[in-house]
Amino acid sequence: MKRILTGIKPTGSPHIGNYLGAIRPALALADLPDTEALYFIADYHALTTVHDGAALAHLTREVAATWLAFGLDPEKTLFYRQSDVPEIFELSWILACFTSKGWMNKMHAYKARVADAGADADAADAGINVGIYTYPVLMAADILLFDTDLVPVGKDQVQHVEIARDMAQRINHVYKAELLRLPAAKIDEQTAVVTGLDGRKMSKSYDNTIPLFSSAKKLRKTVNQIVTDSTPPEAPKDPDTSHIFTLHKLFASAGEVAAMRERYASGIGWGDAKGALADKLEELLAGPRAKYDELMANPAQLDALLARGAERARAYAAPVIARLRAATGIRVKP
Amino acid sequence: MKRILTGIKPTGSPHIGNYLGAIRPALALADLPDTEALYFIADYHALTTVHDGAALAHLTREVAATWLAFGLDPEKTLFYRQSDVPEIFELSWILACFTSKGWMNKMHAYKARVADAGADADAADAGINVGIYTYPVLMAADILLFDTDLVPVGKDQVQHVEIARDMAQRINHVYKAELLRLPAAKIDEQTAVVTGLDGRKMSKSYDNTIPLFSSAKKLRKTVNQIVTDSTPPEAPKDPDTSHIFTLHKLFASAGEVAAMRERYASGIGWGDAKGALADKLEELLAGPRAKYDELMANPAQLDALLARGAERARAYAAPVIARLRAATGIRVKP
Repeated sequence: MKRILTGIKPTGSPHIGNYLGAIRPALALADLPDTEALYFIADYHALTTVHDGAALAHLTREVAATWLAFGLDPEKTLFYRQSDVPEIFELSWILACFTSKGWMNKMHAYKARVADAGADADAADAGINVGIYTYPVLMAADILLFDTDLVPVGKDQVQHVEIARDMAQRINHVYKAELLRLPAAKIDEQTAVVTGLDGRKMSKSYDNTIPLFSSAKKLRKTVNQIVTDSTPPEAPKDPDTSHIFTLHKLFASAGEVAAMRERYASGIGWGDAKGALADKLEELLAGPRAKYDELMANPAQLDALLARGAERARAYAAPVIARLRAATGIRVKP
Repeated sequence: MKRILTGIKPTGSPHIGNYLGAIRPALALADLPDTEALYFIADYHALTTVHDGAALAHLTREVAATWLAFGLDPEKTLFYRQSDVPEIFELSWILACFTSKGWMNKMHAYKARVADAGADADAADAGINVGIYTYPVLMAADILLFDTDLVPVGKDQVQHVEIARDMAQRINHVYKAELLRLPAAKIDEQTAVVTGLDGRKMSKSYDNTIPLFSSAKKLRKTVNQIVTDSTPPEAPKDPDTSHIFTLHKLFASAGEVAAMRERYASGIGWGDAKGALADKLEELLAGPRAKYDELMANPAQLDALLARGAERARAYAAPVIARLRAATGIRVKP
């Protein structure tokens, strides 16, 4: 049985890029045999950048409801809020005591910030909070607290799993005991690039996303905003240069994709192409949307579900923290 | 009613320098009217440097027993281990999200390390762990979690109270509410310099200390190691240039000091002067030593006493964390 762990940072409303790039593959992973998944909403990670309380509270519930709406089974997968597991913050401090500051300076995100500031480290440091600088330590605590085996990550995140591994190794070495399990990164190779309304990568920061859970009407309206050229409706079109088609094929079956290719070749109006995409999306999203709306209408129930997940996660954390406390000379709670 | 807070880092066995410089003034402060004192053993702060589990566990109990032996009243003063209050680590993360990294770079201790490394920040950072670098954030959490009014500190520590104040101000400003009370430093002016066996400042790092709780016999033996010159016993001596006298007067009454001055002037052998100092110390330490030995012989009882203090402290912490969670958008635990 392999234990896999994924954190979900609630920093924006989920869109179809998140669904394809993160939610769908993660849910497939959680269904693998011999796998136990821990998926958590990293609300305290989001606090490094989201300093609006109402927004953070809403985003957290939105993200949780989204994953559940797409079929995350909270009985099978441990699904919890980071903030409901206080041991994470305690472990984060323990790890900090064994993490060379030099390691933090090498983190991509921090280096990029310093580079942006034109090599003026002081200027960079003025605009970076300590949470951003040390978040790899908190992330390592997220991972190591649960004896995680595998952390599915994009290539740019491998570094964070490696540093968690380094911390675990150092602590095991100092105390001459297998206190922490060494996690491995599981690199997600097939990172589908999802194009946004304007043809660039779909991203909240480009304001070109298709939200997962607007109304059916709003969804259709958003799809209609996909930028197209002025080729006349009856002219044959190359599907592979169309953003509409690129999106469509990410959701459609092989048969549907082939049929759609033919329609492009024989001439389809952009309006009809958009309509077909909107139909396909509606087909996919109608069910989850109903579930999502129901979850969002009952925040207390959603909170309770996440709290139950946290209690189960804390049961996994307890022996790990107890081992560490005993080894480091901190009193083990009776 | 003013709430004052003091952290005690268990990094060495308490000696008479600690008693005079920290324990005695802190106990006097806790006895002031309209004052409520929170004194805690900063065991997780010590983890930045003490990476020997047995040593840290022992030092923590030693320090706790010492303060109790000298009369700390755990019914009146909240006396607890830092590690028994998980909210401290959670608050530390919250504060980190509002603390400019640039502030950390300005901390004396870090700057001194960088200076030692010859302005080579990379070399300095390799030898500094993240715990050492960010400990002002944890220290701010220690303070702010309990709505502390006053933090008694030496001059070199004022900076840490100021930064805690800055963090509180920033958070109150961002969320437009009085979420955190602004603490003030109470500068301890009369920092008695206690000379060690060799005439330098008494310090664990010089290995010139007089431990508080060795046996009566060992105490006398240690006092006999005070370095003296070869002036013959019968020669008159200047008390003000004698380390023995300097120590003696820190413990003796005015009358005793005057009498001792006369003995020095009329000629006292160093052996007799040491004997008189040892007598004085034994008079002071015999009672606390008995209490200390009793406490150290019952670690479970000592732990329970500290755990009770932690429960009381957590009751103070609960509304503060609840206020912060509500404001930042993290779910408030029911």
